[in-house]
Amino acid sequence: MNKFINDDFLLANDSAKKLYFEYAEPSPIVDFHSHLSAEEMASDKKWKDIYEIWLGGDHYKWRAMRSAGVPEDLITGEASGREKFFAFAGAMPKMIRNPLYHWCHLELARFFGIDDLLLSEKTAEEVWERANEKISCGLSARKCLEMGKVEVACTTDDPCDSLESHKSLSEDENFATKVCPTFRVDKAMSFGSGEKFAEYLEKLSGASGVEISSYTDFIEAIKRRHDFFDSVGCRSSDYGLASVPFAENFPIEHLDEAFVRAANGERISEEESEALASETLLECSRMDFESGWVRQFHIGPMRNNNSAMFAKLGPDSGFDSMGESNYARSLSRHLDTLNSEGKLARTIFYNIHPKDSEMLASMLGNFQDGSFAGKMQLGAAWWFLDQKDGIERHLEIVSAMSLLPCFVGMLTDSRSFLSFSRHEYFRRILCSVLGRDMEAGILPRDFDLVGEAVSDISYRNAKSYFGF
Amino acid sequence: MNKFINDDFLLANDSAKKLYFEYAEPSPIVDFHSHLSAEEMASDKKWKDIYEIWLGGDHYKWRAMRSAGVPEDLITGEASGREKFFAFAGAMPKMIRNPLYHWCHLELARFFGIDDLLLSEKTAEEVWERANEKISCGLSARKCLEMGKVEVACTTDDPCDSLESHKSLSEDENFATKVCPTFRVDKAMSFGSGEKFAEYLEKLSGASGVEISSYTDFIEAIKRRHDFFDSVGCRSSDYGLASVPFAENFPIEHLDEAFVRAANGERISEEESEALASETLLECSRMDFESGWVRQFHIGPMRNNNSAMFAKLGPDSGFDSMGESNYARSLSRHLDTLNSEGKLARTIFYNIHPKDSEMLASMLGNFQDGSFAGKMQLGAAWWFLDQKDGIERHLEIVSAMSLLPCFVGMLTDSRSFLSFSRHEYFRRILCSVLGRDMEAGILPRDFDLVGEAVSDISYRNAKSYFGF
Amino acid sequence: MNKFINDDFLLANDSAKKLYFEYAEPSPIVDFHSHLSAEEMASDKKWKDIYEIWLGGDHYKWRAMRSAGVPEDLITGEASGREKFFAFAGAMPKMIRNPLYHWCHLELARFFGIDDLLLSEKTAEEVWERANEKISCGLSARKCLEMGKVEVACTTDDPCDSLESHKSLSEDENFATKVCPTFRVDKAMSFGSGEKFAEYLEKLSGASGVEISSYTDFIEAIKRRHDFFDSVGCRSSDYGLASVPFAENFPIEHLDEAFVRAANGERISEEESEALASETLLECSRMDFESGWVRQFHIGPMRNNNSAMFAKLGPDSGFDSMGESNYARSLSRHLDTLNSEGKLARTIFYNIHPKDSEMLASMLGNFQDGSFAGKMQLGAAWWFLDQKDGIERHLEIVSAMSLLPCFVGMLTDSRSFLSFSRHEYFRRILCSVLGRDMEAGILPRDFDLVGEAVSDISYRNAKSYFGF
Repeated sequence: MNKFINDDFLLANDSAKKLYFEYAEPSPIVDFHSHLSAEEMASDKKWKDIYEIWLGGDHYKWRAMRSAGVPEDLITGEASGREKFFAFAGAMPKMIRNPLYHWCHLELARFFGIDDLLLSEKTAEEVWERANEKISCGLSARKCLEMGKVEVACTTDDPCDSLESHKSLSEDENFATKVCPTFRVDKAMSFGSGEKFAEYLEKLSGASGVEISSYTDFIEAIKRRHDFFDSVGCRSSDYGLASVPFAENFPIEHLDEAFVRAANGERISEEESEALASETLLECSRMDFESGWVRQFHIGPMRNNNSAMFAKLGPDSGFDSMGESNYARSLSRHLDTLNSEGKLARTIFYNIHPKDSEMLASMLGNFQDGSFAGKMQLGAAWWFLDQKDGIERHLEIVSAMSLLPCFVGMLTDSRSFLSFSRHEYFRRILCSVLGRDMEAGILPRDFDLVGEAVSDISYRNAKSYFGF
Repeated sequence: MNKFINDDFLLANDSAKKLYFEYAEPSPIVDFHSHLSAEEMASDKKWKDIYEIWLGGDHYKWRAMRSAGVPEDLITGEASGREKFFAFAGAMPKMIRNPLYHWCHLELARFFGIDDLLLSEKTAEEVWERANEKISCGLSARKCLEMGKVEVACTTDDPCDSLESHKSLSEDENFATKVCPTFRVDKAMSFGSGEKFAEYLEKLSGASGVEISSYTDFIEAIKRRHDFFDSVGCRSSDYGLASVPFAENFPIEHLDEAFVRAANGERISEEESEALASETLLECSRMDFESGWVRQFHIGPMRNNNSAMFAKLGPDSGFDSMGESNYARSLSRHLDTLNSEGKLARTIFYNIHPKDSEMLASMLGNFQDGSFAGKMQLGAAWWFLDQKDGIERHLEIVSAMSLLPCFVGMLTDSRSFLSFSRHEYFRRILCSVLGRDMEAGILPRDFDLVGEAVSDISYRNAKSYFGF
Repeated sequence: MNKFINDDFLLANDSAKKLYFEYAEPSPIVDFHSHLSAEEMASDKKWKDIYEIWLGGDHYKWRAMRSAGVPEDLITGEASGREKFFAFAGAMPKMIRNPLYHWCHLELARFFGIDDLLLSEKTAEEVWERANEKISCGLSARKCLEMGKVEVACTTDDPCDSLESHKSLSEDENFATKVCPTFRVDKAMSFGSGEKFAEYLEKLSGASGVEISSYTDFIEAIKRRHDFFDSVGCRSSDYGLASVPFAENFPIEHLDEAFVRAANGERISEEESEALASETLLECSRMDFESGWVRQFHIGPMRNNNSAMFAKLGPDSGFDSMGESNYARSLSRHLDTLNSEGKLARTIFYNIHPKDSEMLASMLGNFQDGSFAGKMQLGAAWWFLDQKDGIERHLEIVSAMSLLPCFVGMLTDSRSFLSFSRHEYFRRILCSVLGRDMEAGILPRDFDLVGEAVSDISYRNAKSYFGF
């Protein structure tokens, strides 16, 4: 019991252990949302050292280092990978109780076999050596998928992507993991971005073979790419939104006119941009329904708050946070519109601001129907909420305001091949919560009943929900 | 200890048990807000089978069934009661950790004596038989009140109601429960509903004997019904509001003019409707104060989100959820207006969105005065929040930001005669929280001190607060 | 173990005890934000009785008494101090689980040596006698500081204050506590207050020696006072704001014109007032940065809700509560503006509404940099949130979304010399949370690692953060 990451890590009692080892741990992983690179899977990416795989692209760690007072040079700057790794190791003791402390030690244990020490300035050298040896002995993208028992991994892709890597992966008989693309139309919906939008349309036109001179053309182009994604095994769309757009009173006849101006690279008004987003979201959602896809919504971030760092590093570098938009009304109208048409697809909502979790959970209950158990889902705790306390809160809310056993479970949302251990992290927390309830008599001490729920949430629900 | 609903259900330790069995359990029930039917009490309603009493009118269960993927036909459709009951039983295992799982088993145990099994597909037949036998052996509305030790039960009534059943119940010497009406003016305040409002006014005119041709007449008509309700034993009003209306700058001279248009069945502007609601709420509140009544506010739902199902089933069928209105400012102005006049009645606020609980608790503290301990109350966790986690959060907030021992306690807010066991559910949670604190040294281990608080919250506070 | 406030009060297990007694308890107190009076320290204020020190100026206790149904006469009215104390004692049993119950008994134990009883009507006489004897035996402002091991105490001061008491205290060799002023510009930023603002400007003009006839003069006057405060040892500014002002589109050329009207005692528009506040906040923040000060922001209260009581008692009498402003966007722009100039000082944000805690914690992460560990801080749970549950929530949020070991820790924010025991209260909760995590294997069982964090949070971080 001296190891931090030991067999019973986070498992509060015997019931929790039984649930975890008998029902959760044996399940493969269905990672239905991530930002992994299909190219890196296709080429079976290898890494130079632990810096490259662990720190090179992880803005969670960058943020934590900045908070700990590490100079930017040692984070994203000119310093060597080794120096940056040591800076990170030195900052680790300041990360106790932050999810990174658990994530990092879990990854060291599971992918590098390092579970007999705590990372710190003192142990940095040893970890650097041992981890790099592991890397040089053949750790690779595919090896990580195999170690993680990843049955399905979904990437996140632009409609213009050729999906060449996905195709080659699906044809590779030596590769056990099913890799599916996800249709993410964020750029296609950035109507307010002026010339960037015009440039994007050219790309979309090229990819779809549709000349785009009207809003109708635009939707047709997206439809063609939607069909193409479907043919390559896509089972889900993903919408990254600051809020849920729904234009209550925008005259539909102005839509095309506004689109044409946007397509010409002109700046359009916020109202016009919102109306186009509203309509396009509906159109794409209808396509999702027709294709039997799952819709995923990531709602609420306020991005690129630090303009000085944005100028240096661009987006996704650790300068995003929670927005405060209210979207109960627009979401209700959006869902009701689709539902009234009989075209509401299975949908998962991830909210960034915890104030919205209960509202969402209650809203989704309005659109459950007999077509699928857990058709509308409050997705697993996301981004800033993806930590022990946030996961537990999410489980409480889903339990109280929806049905926990219908929950589709965990996903990594990660850019790193080492993040699959977050499924283990989630499962341990899940089992600990349920085990605690069983021993307190809050749940029946019935392992068939509760264990089935664990298996469903860990694996089976996601598989049937997406139709993998 | 093999039974799920056993004596110690939810009671975490010995202190919790002592508190529950010595201070909570012996107390009768004062159920000061419900949607029970006085007619059914007067006629001593009996039921055909457990479907009718349990599932026929319970939109909580309907929602859960939809979430579990049960087709609508087996929920509100053409299927038989028996089929629907079996569909519900089959979905029960998916409801673990949902409040329904506890509520249902508690009701089976307390009203049907069924505490030796868990409801599921497997046990459905047995439960169907045993429960229906109990029903055929004389379970009735009044029997439920008796079994629940219900000393007072309050219904929710429209100002136009004749309250005949209430009168006959109060004259019935064989009936121990005091049944009081509650004055709920929602329809009278739906100024924006066009012809429906005009129709309602006709009804109100008939009931009050006041010809309504001006706003002043309207208030007079309400006043007469208020007096009538008071004469039949009403002790409380109830306001169901999406937000708290307060018209800061609406010219008072336009009020009557807007009212006359609304009374003619015309659609008026949202601003006018808000101004009328603001003024009417103040007028009714003054009446409440003059009559020594308690005001109850249910704030925040967003109703009838699913228009397709609304067309089929009408309101209150399980398609409501949390709205997001902000009302700190309007509530402050509303309360201050009445307080400045010396006409602020004792008031209980129930919020639907948990983000508002702390704001409300702190706001109410601004208007406490020496006139009554706990004059302003943050009501028990309501609707989506009425579950174990929500109840515990409510107790924390009331404890930290107000005074827990002054809390008026639990109510069912239910349409079902079986819901009285929710008082037991609440009391067990209350005692468990306090018992845990005592054993952790967070509270003094002084049963006189803590036990008195339990008795007060379970029974005595409500009785004196309403003046029953 | 029969005493309520015993050695192990709130310490859940052995790890918690070890953390508290070895790492937290030995640390002196750095109380970096309070409303203590430097005059009372300079004159070594003594009190007549426990009423004067305990109840005479404490609006927390007043609110609780009002909630408990105590008439105003016995709170702020004509009744004697003894009568008021007895009224408070009688209401104490109604305060179990309210922070006052812990605070009061902790203060009785630590400053009066009374730890063998619970305050109530029954014990009121004994406490009155024993406490007053302690007071008459020499309890004084300085004695309290000494008993509390207060190394640094910061007051809150208006730019016009002469800081004479601070100067004399710093010259007093017999006085061990360092007493620093804090620069609080609330009145200087009340541009919308009409004649009051004009009057304030006269005072400011007198204090600064700057004739103020333009906005530039105004800033110059503030700058002079800022420099003066710095010369007397000030290390921090403090901004009390209903929200964070940031004028996105206000034409800068109108600013001076609006200021001149405000300076003449005219009412200016809300937009103008907001623009002036926005600009002044930026200007002051630049001064803070240049002086190496820490900025403190107290955001969100809605004050003086009860106008009848405001007319009687004025501000800060217990009639304030949580506002609902949203300020993610304006705060982002404010911080980004300063950061882009390289003039963003170390800053602590205290929010009154718990819905904002996570938003703030995530926002602050956008502006962390290598200049200082924990440069941007989510301050300790404030006002209504400053209680056991709120403190625990704050620790969770800081842990999950920032770095707990970099947290600058507790402050009293109090008007009372007895409040230093709240540092003990906080430390006990902190150690209990961490000790529980250690015993559950959530944290490594490594006392060097966790204990260092406790020492840092209890004392060292604050000292280095402010540069005391």
